[in-house]
Amino acid sequence: MLNEVSSFLLIGQSNMAGRGYIKDVKQIYDEQIRMLVNGRWQTMTEPINFDRPTSGVSLAASFAGAWRLENPGRQIGLIPCAEGGSSLDDWAVGGPLFENAVFNAKLAMRISTLEGILWHQGENDSFGGRFKQYNDKLQVIITALRDELQVPEIPLILGGLGDFLADGRYGKYFTEFRTVNGKLLEFASTQPNTFFVTASGLTANPDGLHFNAVSLRKFGIRYFKAFQYRQNIEAATADENELIDTIANRELTKTEKINLLEISFASGTISLENCEAQLALLNAG
Amino acid sequence: MLNEVSSFLLIGQSNMAGRGYIKDVKQIYDEQIRMLVNGRWQTMTEPINFDRPTSGVSLAASFAGAWRLENPGRQIGLIPCAEGGSSLDDWAVGGPLFENAVFNAKLAMRISTLEGILWHQGENDSFGGRFKQYNDKLQVIITALRDELQVPEIPLILGGLGDFLADGRYGKYFTEFRTVNGKLLEFASTQPNTFFVTASGLTANPDGLHFNAVSLRKFGIRYFKAFQYRQNIEAATADENELIDTIANRELTKTEKINLLEISFASGTISLENCEAQLALLNAG
Repeated sequence: MLNEVSSFLLIGQSNMAGRGYIKDVKQIYDEQIRMLVNGRWQTMTEPINFDRPTSGVSLAASFAGAWRLENPGRQIGLIPCAEGGSSLDDWAVGGPLFENAVFNAKLAMRISTLEGILWHQGENDSFGGRFKQYNDKLQVIITALRDELQVPEIPLILGGLGDFLADGRYGKYFTEFRTVNGKLLEFASTQPNTFFVTASGLTANPDGLHFNAVSLRKFGIRYFKAFQYRQNIEAATADENELIDTIANRELTKTEKINLLEISFASGTISLENCEAQLALLNAG
Repeated sequence: MLNEVSSFLLIGQSNMAGRGYIKDVKQIYDEQIRMLVNGRWQTMTEPINFDRPTSGVSLAASFAGAWRLENPGRQIGLIPCAEGGSSLDDWAVGGPLFENAVFNAKLAMRISTLEGILWHQGENDSFGGRFKQYNDKLQVIITALRDELQVPEIPLILGGLGDFLADGRYGKYFTEFRTVNGKLLEFASTQPNTFFVTASGLTANPDGLHFNAVSLRKFGIRYFKAFQYRQNIEAATADENELIDTIANRELTKTEKINLLEISFASGTISLENCEAQLALLNAG
């Protein structure tokens, strides 16, 4: 059946693509959480947004998990189009990043209903006075995106930049990140159907640049709350850790267990004998 | 400068995407070998074609390495659009796989010259008499692709299916793979600018379905020979192991060494102290 999937477009730079270490958090695996690959839905695994060899955990996984808790009988689809290191100028209308996002969203819209846009960007506009033009540039991009996709009122969720940026290895490049955070909040407060999510209290990988996996799980919950309640989220949400536990500890279906076994086998992680033995147990159970 | 990159479109199913285990072969890393990500070039790392969590080594890496040996001052760009498990029907003109390949090729052609199409597909048409329509269906797809991209005479390289398919875990699904191999050879022999590459002697992962990493390195060399000499490659090429060694043992540039260190650090594989110490040595050297 067409349009049974609710889809979300993921755009921005590396902290939307996600650089959390896979090993640091429990996997979220749910047949009803899909991601767009070559214009078709696949069951989500991380990395979702493989723009670099360093891609890993993303905020989109727990966003989707939280969405699923509220929509137990339905499917969600993620459309990964974020690009590491991209500035707002890189997202200019007509450029490859913009066109790629529009194209993938349109492919997804053949088989789903687009319900939101998740945006995280700004590190690469946090110096040299770029903040002065930030909101004008962002508005041009978002307006064009809503126009091209014919979703004029679609919710846009914008996340803030991490508090850690000033002190990290690359701190000297991000001298104006607090100002950019102010601009993002201002944008959300003045634009229709646009909501800001704070990164307050979230922490980074050792690079002091990328949110770590544990923080990205929290950030995804905050993004979802902003979407769910159509409001800014300006402080950590009280139940974010509890929700993350609920999502990560969901009982897997038999099909999901089989699929994970097959992935382990095909990746060379377990032997054929081990795989077959575990499959036999599952099928007998 | 525009069009300084020679690009190649990678399409087909999982054995074009590549499922070789990364740990089994030496990494090919060369600043002049690029891959398309979100419409822009990035330095190639494997997996190149991340269509599944099991994606790994692909034949495209050694193809590119062999191309570089013949074109030492130039850049090559890979356009990954292969999709695991896809049948010829899945590649129908107007469907998501076809449209995705055309779109990505067009984005690449903004910043490169498209010089070839590498195709590997057929496992999923190796049963039920599908071979009878294989060449008619393939011709429609390839003609439409050359038309849409306005490259009517571009070389198309087609690889054969692995000898191991009959005996593997999924052998019962591939009863007609030898007939499909005959069809591929016939297609190459009757279509202009189309060349067939044998998989003879190549071996598989324990699944008996996917070429292993060592074999994919060889396969890529054979694909390159077919492209270079514009002829079918119907037996293992005499110097394929030697070429693979030459490619894999190329001395890295200082920039490449720095980039690999930064990837290791950003991925959490080495500590900041270790990274900085190695960078200091490189910069002093």
